[in-house]
Amino acid sequence: MSRCIALLTDFGTSDWFAASMKGAILCIDPDAAIVDITNEIPAGDIPSAAFCLLSCYSYFPAGTVFVVVVDPGVGSKRPAIALSAGGYFFVAPDNGVLSPTVENHSDIRIRSIENPSCMRLPVSTTFHGRDVFAPAAAHISRGFAFDNLGPSQETMVRCALPVAEEQGAVVRGAILYVDRFGNLISNITPTLVSCSNARVRFAGKSIPVCSCYADVAEGQLLAVVGSSGFIEISVNRGNAAKQLGIKVGDEVEIGPDKEK
Amino acid sequence: MSRCIALLTDFGTSDWFAASMKGAILCIDPDAAIVDITNEIPAGDIPSAAFCLLSCYSYFPAGTVFVVVVDPGVGSKRPAIALSAGGYFFVAPDNGVLSPTVENHSDIRIRSIENPSCMRLPVSTTFHGRDVFAPAAAHISRGFAFDNLGPSQETMVRCALPVAEEQGAVVRGAILYVDRFGNLISNITPTLVSCSNARVRFAGKSIPVCSCYADVAEGQLLAVVGSSGFIEISVNRGNAAKQLGIKVGDEVEIGPDKEK
Amino acid sequence: MSRCIALLTDFGTSDWFAASMKGAILCIDPDAAIVDITNEIPAGDIPSAAFCLLSCYSYFPAGTVFVVVVDPGVGSKRPAIALSAGGYFFVAPDNGVLSPTVENHSDIRIRSIENPSCMRLPVSTTFHGRDVFAPAAAHISRGFAFDNLGPSQETMVRCALPVAEEQGAVVRGAILYVDRFGNLISNITPTLVSCSNARVRFAGKSIPVCSCYADVAEGQLLAVVGSSGFIEISVNRGNAAKQLGIKVGDEVEIGPDKEK
Repeated sequence: MSRCIALLTDFGTSDWFAASMKGAILCIDPDAAIVDITNEIPAGDIPSAAFCLLSCYSYFPAGTVFVVVVDPGVGSKRPAIALSAGGYFFVAPDNGVLSPTVENHSDIRIRSIENPSCMRLPVSTTFHGRDVFAPAAAHISRGFAFDNLGPSQETMVRCALPVAEEQGAVVRGAILYVDRFGNLISNITPTLVSCSNARVRFAGKSIPVCSCYADVAEGQLLAVVGSSGFIEISVNRGNAAKQLGIKVGDEVEIGPDKEK
Repeated sequence: MSRCIALLTDFGTSDWFAASMKGAILCIDPDAAIVDITNEIPAGDIPSAAFCLLSCYSYFPAGTVFVVVVDPGVGSKRPAIALSAGGYFFVAPDNGVLSPTVENHSDIRIRSIENPSCMRLPVSTTFHGRDVFAPAAAHISRGFAFDNLGPSQETMVRCALPVAEEQGAVVRGAILYVDRFGNLISNITPTLVSCSNARVRFAGKSIPVCSCYADVAEGQLLAVVGSSGFIEISVNRGNAAKQLGIKVGDEVEIGPDKEK
Repeated sequence: MSRCIALLTDFGTSDWFAASMKGAILCIDPDAAIVDITNEIPAGDIPSAAFCLLSCYSYFPAGTVFVVVVDPGVGSKRPAIALSAGGYFFVAPDNGVLSPTVENHSDIRIRSIENPSCMRLPVSTTFHGRDVFAPAAAHISRGFAFDNLGPSQETMVRCALPVAEEQGAVVRGAILYVDRFGNLISNITPTLVSCSNARVRFAGKSIPVCSCYADVAEGQLLAVVGSSGFIEISVNRGNAAKQLGIKVGDEVEIGPDKEK
């Protein structure tokens, strides 16, 4: 049975970078089932990569090895880490990209990847995706002992996504991510919303919380609990980001209808 | 031996949506050979997705399961269907996206996907690709009995691509699709063209029907029988769509040279 | 164990062309591990494809079959070739796209692909990727005798990438490729640079040769030995191509600092 290795990078798809990683993986584990999460994270955008990983990792098979390479510090002294949590493995530069995904797991183990026998030698100074992270993932996939990857590490760099706050009956949050459909994904989970008939408010608008896009007419704004588990602002068969001019980091609040 | 599961969606490649579907598939069928047809169908564009599927499905191995998710009605009451035809399986929302591909097969069987044991539970209201279609495809791939997916369904929604018409010696058709090279793919098949020395006419131009791009000089217009089996308008080493300003739906006709 | 088949094309990712090739491969070799190097080579750009292949092929497992389809002459009389060199196999139109990769190998064998039993019949005039190259690759992957693909061919078309020249202490070269990060990849290898404290000079600027991006402040220009083995001009956490307005073919030179 093949083990899944999932790639999440900012290498794009027009050059050979992700392919070199796949070649390096298949040299070590020819039966790996390699899946691209995406290679189109904006260059160096650690929070976007962190949110992408958080949004999809739990839908992969137990034992999947996630290779997350958004690495503006490549070649500097930043550590490369391997992490085990929740039945999954992760390899990434120690720059915070894993923290939103793993910080709710109680069984985190971290190793600094330092063992040359799990790297591709010589290691370049500009492409650790190919020379460090892909080989380490393939070795893990093949059963290389996690504890032999390198010395144990107690902590790691954190990338804290903004957290929504309850203020009385109102929850104040922010937009974490804008997807390809123009859906505006907030950091507000439905469990934070205590009232019925809640409305999402921002940019002077009050938007109903619905159960699916078709609950409003075409072209109309609505909020739904999106597939990441957060409340999203959408337009039925339209693009909320374009319609509203909203971007990542903008504030949003949810509260009772009567407060409007 | 691994079974092929082919994805065709409008989820794009910059987010994690197609990857979540692949994770959901691999949780059920870890040996599936997953192929992306494309994930870049324009959002909600059912005719484009239908034409893409029609153009490539027959080149896949017998038994391939096609997962077609262009689904602006997700979360509403539109059924999810599984379809067996011509030795292939298809899962999709019942919105017409499968009809051009399957309607020439005499052995169509349709089931409404309603059996919760072939879904990922709980089913979200915004992402049936991950929670309904990908799991159903993986269960079919693993041998789940087709007839157990849900109740039989007699008909399905149709998406009728425009049909070319013969008017005497002239065939009148329309552009169905513009590909990445700017080739303008019509709905006219070569069997409709009875005359020799036929010319394609539109936008005031008369274009020769050739056997390959190199039959004309670089930068010149020509028509060829394209790889989808339809007559296409191209520019040798150029982009016909840009050169002519033609788009999907525009009319085109083919007739004898002497009529010009 | 699955054999790797790696695709490098200009077919893009928004249509079904690369997928048709994958379907054709899986019909013949259902266990092939198919990897996309990239499908986004600019249409007809043979030098870019040649450089992509050169930059990544050696990171793939021995025995990998590379399918390189950038083929503006499809349907004309240009031969289709299969090539064996350095433990790898290659199939491509005979237009030079393979030459920079294979010309340093001493064990090159070339066959003109003419045996219909390794093609998908009938062969179209516009899509040899699907009908000739993908099937040939899959047959090679399955063990089809290389010498039975067609008659031996002594030479092939060459695509000569420009070569850097030493002029005293100065090396004069050119930009071969601009990657997605805006790194400007030259044709100068570090072995050509004899002096210490070398500087890269062009566009009136003098840039230090460093060992990693973080050796200079954010936003600053530097040169590094990139992952392709050539000296590249980069901006730490920035885009050198945008900052400098440099493009493929532009000249660059490297020489001692004191000459400045």
